[in-house]
Amino acid sequence: MKSFASDNYSGIHPEIFDAIQNANYQHEISYCDDTFTSETNQIFEKIFGKLVVLYAFNGTGANVICLKCCTLPFQAVICSDMAHILIDECGAPTQSIGCTLLPIATPNGKITPELIAPLLKGVGNVHHIQPKVISISQSTEMGTVYSLQELKNLCQFAHSNGLYVHLDGARISNAVASLGVSIKVATVDCGIDIMSFGGTKNGLMMGEAVLIFNDKLNENAHYYQKQSAQLFSKNRFIAAQFSALLSNDLWYRMASHSNRMAKFLENQIKELPGVKITQSVDANALFVIIPNHVIPPLRSKYTFYEWDSETHEQRWMCSFDTTEEDVFGFVKTLKELL
Amino acid sequence: MKSFASDNYSGIHPEIFDAIQNANYQHEISYCDDTFTSETNQIFEKIFGKLVVLYAFNGTGANVICLKCCTLPFQAVICSDMAHILIDECGAPTQSIGCTLLPIATPNGKITPELIAPLLKGVGNVHHIQPKVISISQSTEMGTVYSLQELKNLCQFAHSNGLYVHLDGARISNAVASLGVSIKVATVDCGIDIMSFGGTKNGLMMGEAVLIFNDKLNENAHYYQKQSAQLFSKNRFIAAQFSALLSNDLWYRMASHSNRMAKFLENQIKELPGVKITQSVDANALFVIIPNHVIPPLRSKYTFYEWDSETHEQRWMCSFDTTEEDVFGFVKTLKELL
Amino acid sequence: MKSFASDNYSGIHPEIFDAIQNANYQHEISYCDDTFTSETNQIFEKIFGKLVVLYAFNGTGANVICLKCCTLPFQAVICSDMAHILIDECGAPTQSIGCTLLPIATPNGKITPELIAPLLKGVGNVHHIQPKVISISQSTEMGTVYSLQELKNLCQFAHSNGLYVHLDGARISNAVASLGVSIKVATVDCGIDIMSFGGTKNGLMMGEAVLIFNDKLNENAHYYQKQSAQLFSKNRFIAAQFSALLSNDLWYRMASHSNRMAKFLENQIKELPGVKITQSVDANALFVIIPNHVIPPLRSKYTFYEWDSETHEQRWMCSFDTTEEDVFGFVKTLKELL
Amino acid sequence: MKSFASDNYSGIHPEIFDAIQNANYQHEISYCDDTFTSETNQIFEKIFGKLVVLYAFNGTGANVICLKCCTLPFQAVICSDMAHILIDECGAPTQSIGCTLLPIATPNGKITPELIAPLLKGVGNVHHIQPKVISISQSTEMGTVYSLQELKNLCQFAHSNGLYVHLDGARISNAVASLGVSIKVATVDCGIDIMSFGGTKNGLMMGEAVLIFNDKLNENAHYYQKQSAQLFSKNRFIAAQFSALLSNDLWYRMASHSNRMAKFLENQIKELPGVKITQSVDANALFVIIPNHVIPPLRSKYTFYEWDSETHEQRWMCSFDTTEEDVFGFVKTLKELL
Repeated sequence: MKSFASDNYSGIHPEIFDAIQNANYQHEISYCDDTFTSETNQIFEKIFGKLVVLYAFNGTGANVICLKCCTLPFQAVICSDMAHILIDECGAPTQSIGCTLLPIATPNGKITPELIAPLLKGVGNVHHIQPKVISISQSTEMGTVYSLQELKNLCQFAHSNGLYVHLDGARISNAVASLGVSIKVATVDCGIDIMSFGGTKNGLMMGEAVLIFNDKLNENAHYYQKQSAQLFSKNRFIAAQFSALLSNDLWYRMASHSNRMAKFLENQIKELPGVKITQSVDANALFVIIPNHVIPPLRSKYTFYEWDSETHEQRWMCSFDTTEEDVFGFVKTLKELL
Repeated sequence: MKSFASDNYSGIHPEIFDAIQNANYQHEISYCDDTFTSETNQIFEKIFGKLVVLYAFNGTGANVICLKCCTLPFQAVICSDMAHILIDECGAPTQSIGCTLLPIATPNGKITPELIAPLLKGVGNVHHIQPKVISISQSTEMGTVYSLQELKNLCQFAHSNGLYVHLDGARISNAVASLGVSIKVATVDCGIDIMSFGGTKNGLMMGEAVLIFNDKLNENAHYYQKQSAQLFSKNRFIAAQFSALLSNDLWYRMASHSNRMAKFLENQIKELPGVKITQSVDANALFVIIPNHVIPPLRSKYTFYEWDSETHEQRWMCSFDTTEEDVFGFVKTLKELL
Repeated sequence: MKSFASDNYSGIHPEIFDAIQNANYQHEISYCDDTFTSETNQIFEKIFGKLVVLYAFNGTGANVICLKCCTLPFQAVICSDMAHILIDECGAPTQSIGCTLLPIATPNGKITPELIAPLLKGVGNVHHIQPKVISISQSTEMGTVYSLQELKNLCQFAHSNGLYVHLDGARISNAVASLGVSIKVATVDCGIDIMSFGGTKNGLMMGEAVLIFNDKLNENAHYYQKQSAQLFSKNRFIAAQFSALLSNDLWYRMASHSNRMAKFLENQIKELPGVKITQSVDANALFVIIPNHVIPPLRSKYTFYEWDSETHEQRWMCSFDTTEEDVFGFVKTLKELL
Repeated sequence: MKSFASDNYSGIHPEIFDAIQNANYQHEISYCDDTFTSETNQIFEKIFGKLVVLYAFNGTGANVICLKCCTLPFQAVICSDMAHILIDECGAPTQSIGCTLLPIATPNGKITPELIAPLLKGVGNVHHIQPKVISISQSTEMGTVYSLQELKNLCQFAHSNGLYVHLDGARISNAVASLGVSIKVATVDCGIDIMSFGGTKNGLMMGEAVLIFNDKLNENAHYYQKQSAQLFSKNRFIAAQFSALLSNDLWYRMASHSNRMAKFLENQIKELPGVKITQSVDANALFVIIPNHVIPPLRSKYTFYEWDSETHEQRWMCSFDTTEEDVFGFVKTLKELL
């Protein structure tokens, strides 16, 4: 089966698989005190500068750790009303940290200082909910990418209002590849305080890294990781994957490839009658509306998800292993059905 | 000092005070096993039919009990984006129940099936947040009142989608007095599953009652009350107040009076140049925009709160002890300043 | 009915009732910004020195605020295995703060550095539960009282291990009256960081005060109070009661009286055949074992609770309004039954 | 490095590794809807009979899911005072479920109906903490194993008191291999309601299975898994490992081998002067006290953990890849040092 359903339908990239295999010898100290973990931490430090790195099994786990690090249970988190932490994690962040999420309606998944400002009226007033973090997804759930200037504006606004900025980076590689700058420039240099660096959706078997840039957020991070069931006894097997991901630009090669496939798909279909592309194709996802009668037969050959059951907007996602042939075949089928 | 700041600025109504005094003799069994509590429970049952009654110290406590009774920690609560449970309780509901609140933007504090429907798309899908309760305030935080038909529509919509309806009744007396029907017709007969019946804002020293009409929600209610720090050892002193409140229509006399004072105030000022009333005056609150230069001198004589720091919308609230003289004096001052 | 069941079976002391009555005039600013609250805060400051005072509706509420102030959700609280916070609050502290309670078995309700030390082995080790607070009850649930030296030793031990000391003072007045020193000497001077000062069990209608001596614990205290549903809109009615309680030594008069009644009862029965007093009568409670056949007829005249359903140990509690006649009557009945 | 520190120091068994490799082809539906997961579920069903299977990343995650399935936030969990859920998970269960843990002191990690009974006195009393689950570890944290009769007694006692039994099976394979019966006979047939089936400590890269036998506990299990950050997008990679583990008796071969190595080690040292074995060697762990001066030089060659910093009791753990040569070398070094 080949699909355009999600970048987590794909398997493990061969270079990542080799890294797992190489890590599988004899005994290693458990719970992140192994040599793989400390070497991978150093690679992260080389890329980002001074930081604290923690590892997590999945994106929800990483988001929970990040939000625990920057909130107390009476505080609130501002996010888009499409945010993964709000909609797609079965309430994990709220239940785990006790914090209220304050969603902001936005057509393209991106939030702005102007949209956030009205939520800050009650800060310091004990009767009000107390926002403490702005959480953004980069790339967003709608496949859009914040520009560097948008990131800087958000971070500056946040910091001048006493808030932290959390970046849900499940697809940060796609976003950075799209922006065409270094990862550092696109994150910590913009003012991001804490982020997850996604692996699972970019060729890893599994694994996310939590990167803490603001050292005010370090103090209890390791306890929060443990308590969130994210401290892996055999962490060498996650660390080794990240080591491979960060070496030889593998993260970039995979992400820019899946982005390119999405753009390639966009170009093949954007002029087709009855096809409407609803979001800017900034990374590896397309959001499209196509005639209703076309959807079932197309889906019977290629899996993909319906994003909106009212408008029948569909989401098509490209992956590190999506090939030009996959796109050609998909487009050919679509054209025949139209 | 007399003020239009809040109905919780007022003291204890004399009939309520007498009830406290009468309850203050010798020893009584503690923790709701006293005769006052069981008698008051019976009064509630006479009014509403079969139900379970619990008592709480304040509105936040009552809301927390209600929401605990109808949710599990992976579920979500749908409410207005002005809901007291979202904005004004410092995150108590979220932190206490672990549930996500899903706010709906609404100009007048009222939510509708049409506004709620889009939030129900993911019900039964493990990746999605799972709404289980619709929470409404009656009267709303904007001083508006749901009509009986609006309540029935909401409840029918909720139940046909497997949701419960919670009514935050901090000012239910004002709403019922406004609707001009019996309390039963305005609540359980519309399909409300669980509600708080406010006392503190209608002449009590303190106290709210949690009324559980849907017996699916009873099972663990007493544990949730205790765990929420709302089980009062000397509950005779809350029960006795409610007994007085429910006797001789005291609740109605007080609520209809404060509603009348609000209407009276509205009538005195609605034609004044530069005065804009922004919400329908259905209960005991007015929301108004007046010229900025008038606000400080007016406030120096009569306390009231600014509702919106951007539009400078002000809230003027009438209480059971607001008099016509108070209104006259207030209007006179306003007119002089204008 | 007169009983030896609990000090919360009693009503409101007349001087306290008068204070409520005096506070019941016209309008006052809500939520602790009233004149009664600020005056009462000053009385507390006169007694204890610099501190932060918060008010709560009941003991569970006060304990929850205290523990929220001194823990983060990955930490743990050390307490006696009879502690009210562990046994008698339906899990409120654990559920509210997310912290594990680590109970210590103790025959008389008192814990010691020696008993605590083994629980501190894992401090700083991310795999271990992290104790951060020692919570004691004074007087204890067994009617015993920590000596000043015991308190000092505990606090010194706690502080040298990076822990805070929380004192559950639901019956602190009885303990202080028993120790025969000033309240300040018995609490903050021993090193207590945060405590509740109980009112409900010593003649108030209701109300507890949270006293924060360690200013590291202040920062978010007001948010925790609000979120715990303990911020009272008409707080003048709690503050006025505390003002009366702290004036003219009323707290001391009531507590020393109930202590004296307990001692008086002890003296009347300690030599009786078949009567075994199981705990030191330091405050206002007696724990006794009497012949089984005596219990039902005695209870039919005077309510009291069975403490231990296996040993049939009974608890007899004296209150501010227990009279010598009550004790005589009780002892007479007991003697006749024996 | 070869060590006796923990069974999670070891890597991936070759047959498990092959299973991962075989699962790594092209696209698969994510989040447990893949063919690997459904096949592995069927293998579990063949072994245990009708059940619900969920997968988790690690033991803490699995325990949290299990406890969420059988508790509401006002209830409590009874466990040994050495239980992993109490001591070793940084408070994850308490913080995640809101429940109080009620620990029982026990010399060998095993709890009994007699020890549990006193904790059940307050069941149904709203003032009391409400036990709902007995949680045991099999094999225990002390390397001991409950007999079938002990398990049956515990389950019968629990069920007749309205409690569930949770089995933390991080090392269930070692326990079952020790008991010499089928897994089914040692778990569901004894009355266990819900359990984790450990993989990580028995040769897997990572992964635990949650097995729900009591269908009252199924209803919301998938939501709890998702919310606990344990739903793996690429779950084929955990399922495939379990498929291999359950095939050709691999789980048994590994577990009985590590048990045998522990017994072998015991036999080599039990007669040595100065060596005291403190626990029955039922599974793959030894607890020993050896002369203090021997510990540092022994540890410099072979890693292992100190269990008790006061008594200097050491824990030596054997793994699936511990060899007779490893044991010989370790014993030889020990003998030389003695």
